[in-house]
Amino acid sequence: MRMSAGELQAYLVKEFPQAFGPGRVHEVVRVDASGISLKLEAGEEHLRPGATVSGPAMMGLADIAAYAAILAAIGPVPLAVTTNFSINFLRKPAPGAIIADAGLLKLGQRLAVCEVALRAPRPEGGDPSATEGEEELYAHAVTTYSIPPRVI
Amino acid sequence: MRMSAGELQAYLVKEFPQAFGPGRVHEVVRVDASGISLKLEAGEEHLRPGATVSGPAMMGLADIAAYAAILAAIGPVPLAVTTNFSINFLRKPAPGAIIADAGLLKLGQRLAVCEVALRAPRPEGGDPSATEGEEELYAHAVTTYSIPPRVI
Amino acid sequence: MRMSAGELQAYLVKEFPQAFGPGRVHEVVRVDASGISLKLEAGEEHLRPGATVSGPAMMGLADIAAYAAILAAIGPVPLAVTTNFSINFLRKPAPGAIIADAGLLKLGQRLAVCEVALRAPRPEGGDPSATEGEEELYAHAVTTYSIPPRVI
Amino acid sequence: MRMSAGELQAYLVKEFPQAFGPGRVHEVVRVDASGISLKLEAGEEHLRPGATVSGPAMMGLADIAAYAAILAAIGPVPLAVTTNFSINFLRKPAPGAIIADAGLLKLGQRLAVCEVALRAPRPEGGDPSATEGEEELYAHAVTTYSIPPRVI
Repeated sequence: MRMSAGELQAYLVKEFPQAFGPGRVHEVVRVDASGISLKLEAGEEHLRPGATVSGPAMMGLADIAAYAAILAAIGPVPLAVTTNFSINFLRKPAPGAIIADAGLLKLGQRLAVCEVALRAPRPEGGDPSATEGEEELYAHAVTTYSIPPRVI
Repeated sequence: MRMSAGELQAYLVKEFPQAFGPGRVHEVVRVDASGISLKLEAGEEHLRPGATVSGPAMMGLADIAAYAAILAAIGPVPLAVTTNFSINFLRKPAPGAIIADAGLLKLGQRLAVCEVALRAPRPEGGDPSATEGEEELYAHAVTTYSIPPRVI
Repeated sequence: MRMSAGELQAYLVKEFPQAFGPGRVHEVVRVDASGISLKLEAGEEHLRPGATVSGPAMMGLADIAAYAAILAAIGPVPLAVTTNFSINFLRKPAPGAIIADAGLLKLGQRLAVCEVALRAPRPEGGDPSATEGEEELYAHAVTTYSIPPRVI
Repeated sequence: MRMSAGELQAYLVKEFPQAFGPGRVHEVVRVDASGISLKLEAGEEHLRPGATVSGPAMMGLADIAAYAAILAAIGPVPLAVTTNFSINFLRKPAPGAIIADAGLLKLGQRLAVCEVALRAPRPEGGDPSATEGEEELYAHAVTTYSIPPRVI
């Protein structure tokens, strides 16, 4: 990875001040060799009728998580743009925290393809495997970013 | 169609007061046999770095346009939920109005599939065909809604 | 368009002899400014249990129709490759002819996005509008092709 | 899982004799709690110009792998039908064996969502982790099946 969690968070605070930073609801919570994780604290403004987190809120989270995964892998490239975004909604999330785990399926010269799983946070101190698996998935997205030519 | 443009607008104002109604940026501009159109007046809060309308703003517009097309066709069914959403981003829209034209590809007992084209508004009084075609498309989405059992 | 229906057919016979040409089941039936149409005569080998045309047969038809639409627009570019393919299956087709109508949503320098509608043939000599509309759609696909750099 | 690898293979031989069984190129190679794997021995008839395995061949493999994963989980339900299929092509596979790993993201009352990864086989006797990771992925698909009402 070309950026640490701290560097990625700092970059996103600067580039997306409305989403990341003091008083904002998005946060980088993991960067490692397999990808990155963001956390969204879903509040009133993210709910739809029925008091579950809205589809567009989840789509926005998945889109920015994919972008963050690309940034972490190749360094800051502000010109990357989403070309295709596909999501399946699996279960309705209650208000509260949502984790987006994003990993790259392909990082090519022109296109990056990223998989994003949206899920409930795992309980702290608990057995991590206890809450893994399909049961906790809220949504699953695959997204393609067009990336500008770059020097490697 | 089971709802007129006025009925659809009134319903959306009630159900999505944060998006539709006085001072809000979404509006129903067409309901006819082939589908519906919404208009979004994209402002500061819808922009991404580079001053073009953000992907999540366009995804939110497309999602609600598909929902409105289903409402217009079968009447108010608040429990319809998106199960799949896929979008291709084609051109970056400048700030200003975006039109979402939504039409149903299938309206079944359990699933509705809807196609949504996002484009620039056509100039008033101008030749409508002059700005038609692929050139003006910002994005194209296809979405599936799961609809609750209903009486027809 | 850079290729006529005859030129496109001849090119596909040469490049995909197993699909196009004498004794084969695919055929170019339209090339005009809005796109192209292919016809598949679905036979025994295209059926799934239940005697309807199989999903993979429809996916193959949609994929090649998108490729043909790109060829017709930019001329023979054998290196174009599909990067993303998304399809919604709407109604089960009975054995017999299926028409694929393909049109480009975007033709960029690096990516082409194409929409494909699969439907029943319209009855000859009948009112063409009589069978238009959502009722006859079997499936709807959107596909992205990566195209090699080219001279325009 | 409701079916073992042997039961699943026997069922697919009966239902899809053109794909599974003696002299056929598809085979069940794994069934466990996390899903199933199929193997396709791609031959001449699966190649496209350039001698790589064709997109439709990979789409067909992914579609049947998703179907097999559902069968393994809920038992034989011949009426399940694909409603949505989305695939990203990541790398061109050379002729030879392709493995499809399929796992369920959701198994609901009406819809099942399945993820399928297409990859090269792992070398026998080698370190399984040595060839894991994004590098070996040929394609990645997500598919939705509509499943008939059933007794659990």
